[in-house]
Amino acid sequence: MSLLIIGSVAFDAIETPFGQTGKIVGGSASYISLASALFYPKVGLTAVVGEDFDFDFLERLKKQGVDTSGVQVKKGEKSFFWSGKYHLDMNSRDTLVTELNVLGDFDPIIPEGWDSPDYVMLGNLSPQVQITTLNRLKKRPKLVVMDTMNFWMEIALPELKEVLSMVDLLTINDEEARQLSGELSLVKAARVIRNLGPKYLIIKKGEHGALLFGPDDQVYFCPALPLEDVFDPTGAGDTFAGGFLGYMASTGATEFADMRKALMYGSCTASFCIEKFGTQRLEEISRADIEARMEKFHNLIAL
Amino acid sequence: MSLLIIGSVAFDAIETPFGQTGKIVGGSASYISLASALFYPKVGLTAVVGEDFDFDFLERLKKQGVDTSGVQVKKGEKSFFWSGKYHLDMNSRDTLVTELNVLGDFDPIIPEGWDSPDYVMLGNLSPQVQITTLNRLKKRPKLVVMDTMNFWMEIALPELKEVLSMVDLLTINDEEARQLSGELSLVKAARVIRNLGPKYLIIKKGEHGALLFGPDDQVYFCPALPLEDVFDPTGAGDTFAGGFLGYMASTGATEFADMRKALMYGSCTASFCIEKFGTQRLEEISRADIEARMEKFHNLIAL
Repeated sequence: MSLLIIGSVAFDAIETPFGQTGKIVGGSASYISLASALFYPKVGLTAVVGEDFDFDFLERLKKQGVDTSGVQVKKGEKSFFWSGKYHLDMNSRDTLVTELNVLGDFDPIIPEGWDSPDYVMLGNLSPQVQITTLNRLKKRPKLVVMDTMNFWMEIALPELKEVLSMVDLLTINDEEARQLSGELSLVKAARVIRNLGPKYLIIKKGEHGALLFGPDDQVYFCPALPLEDVFDPTGAGDTFAGGFLGYMASTGATEFADMRKALMYGSCTASFCIEKFGTQRLEEISRADIEARMEKFHNLIAL
Repeated sequence: MSLLIIGSVAFDAIETPFGQTGKIVGGSASYISLASALFYPKVGLTAVVGEDFDFDFLERLKKQGVDTSGVQVKKGEKSFFWSGKYHLDMNSRDTLVTELNVLGDFDPIIPEGWDSPDYVMLGNLSPQVQITTLNRLKKRPKLVVMDTMNFWMEIALPELKEVLSMVDLLTINDEEARQLSGELSLVKAARVIRNLGPKYLIIKKGEHGALLFGPDDQVYFCPALPLEDVFDPTGAGDTFAGGFLGYMASTGATEFADMRKALMYGSCTASFCIEKFGTQRLEEISRADIEARMEKFHNLIAL
């Protein structure tokens, strides 16, 4: 059993009402890897970075149990860079800078031993790279999860629809679900999106939790933990997905009923992510910290 | 055991993306009474209407088991009238008309037999009328719940603070909680508001559910049912409060642990309210309809 992750490993610069960072490590796959490695020992990462990257971060990923042999380093090139500033309510942000750099022509190489994973997470990347990744696998994984964003709906909708037809589960936020489906009601949006391919759909609503939709009109709701402060929301959605899939992989499960508890673990893991800038908090915690906090989730919804 | 409700019984004119109404019956206490009467047989209503009111509605309330002997009819005066138009997302609305009419000098008369209720719901009204109501009761009820709105924070904050110090539970929406507390984080807002008096606080988040805060940092989350369509959200918050308190009264309970299930019943009742214009849907359903839909709530959050 194994879990393969592809996505961005990059630099971010973040400004929130609580402060701002210089260049720190970010990227969808950084968060996803750290989160899933908290639950599951066999995690492999496919990504690309430039020569300027913080290679100590890759060492730390290895220590957490992540196989980084699929991380290409492009000589003479720079890592993907994103900079953003959060508004006071932390629910919205402005992108200040996006420099694609090495992501511009990313050719995902699946390292030896990783071409037949049981679980796959396609982090937010161009749909074409997501398709190429799936095409390079030797067998159909048990569960393929993908994330995407509004940007790809605008510039690569045909490719996005193609990859949607190849995956089992899409994670997307509420605004993006409405944009992709053209429906305001999330229930209707879910129906439209599931008709595009994915059997399962997770609609992420930030501080308002997440909804899971599945066959036979099944719906499950997972809350977010109400928190005193949201220090930095960057990566929370990726951490959520990583915790979710890491837990799924740890149980070997693939069905709707199994996803309920996995969602709670994802939401719990994300509640740590936002306590400090970047990946810092995720690098500090252990599975025991997550289990301790899961108590709070149970109290939050138990009748 | 008895449940006394005070609030507006009025006319509304509502425009949503699905259509618009002429003058129909509305008002906080109309929704609260109908909702609580679904759960509890001894409900009494204190309100004021003008000579123009739809008296058939009062007859229908009586048939649902509501004692309307506390509803004053002011000769030669007009009923309170509110008109509003919902935006496309149904989460926000513009008020088009507000005519106080009989509410301008409402002197709440507690009818005979209703001066020692066990449960009291102070629907959204001027804080002064809410205070007068409580002062006219002969004994302290077991549980006093109040609702309010941003309008009173702006024009009657001292009186609002006075009534807050007299009640057990406040229901308020998230935006209003932030305004009243000056805190963006709902966890912090809850702490500030509970320090103003109410031991319990319910923060209503519309389609995102509701949070209950209580002593010892207790928090409980109740989801809203994801729906295909929201036809008319008017009265959903009042219906939620009415269902909540009606269920509480039916069990005789007053503690945090008891409120969990009551919140689910409130949310379930509100999910019916929004299916048709005004009070129409609430007048059609029975407790059996609610119990049947509660299954969906359990499936929505059960692990």
